[in-house]
Amino acid sequence: MNYNEIIGIIAGVFTAASLLPQLIKTIKEKDASGISTVMLLVLITGISLWVYYGFLKKDIPIIATNIFSDLVNLTLLFFSIKYKKEKGDM
Amino acid sequence: MNYNEIIGIIAGVFTAASLLPQLIKTIKEKDASGISTVMLLVLITGISLWVYYGFLKKDIPIIATNIFSDLVNLTLLFFSIKYKKEKGDM
Repeated sequence: MNYNEIIGIIAGVFTAASLLPQLIKTIKEKDASGISTVMLLVLITGISLWVYYGFLKKDIPIIATNIFSDLVNLTLLFFSIKYKKEKGDM
Repeated sequence: MNYNEIIGIIAGVFTAASLLPQLIKTIKEKDASGISTVMLLVLITGISLWVYYGFLKKDIPIIATNIFSDLVNLTLLFFSIKYKKEKGDM
């Protein structure tokens, strides 16, 4: 792994880590009222395009980071729809 | 601009767009209680490393998207500290 890739992986770890508290808070409190489903779909679309971009550029840090981010946000989307339905908000 | 760069720019527009509602909501409601300052600092650190990574790779979409994201999140950090101080939460 060269210097550039190490920087990319570290960047990815930081940005991915910043996603986790929101997911943990949502699951713990079983509350997704503060989450916009539309914005989550926009974000997931963007991240999926970044994964595609990473493959086009054969760029490991971009692929790895954005696949992880997609997984976290898809999980957040699942739980936010689940809790909103349970509360009759959807 | 080649095909790859177009995909990168579109991806960047989506991910950047998904940041704006949080900023607008925080400023409109003058409330940052739902925002973790520590996580915002972690996110800004990660995004800044992505900007650096973009320069290392001379990758326009990565540089442009992450500079925009940094600006949005730095603005969010400014307002969240401001409102938390006003409410004595900081």
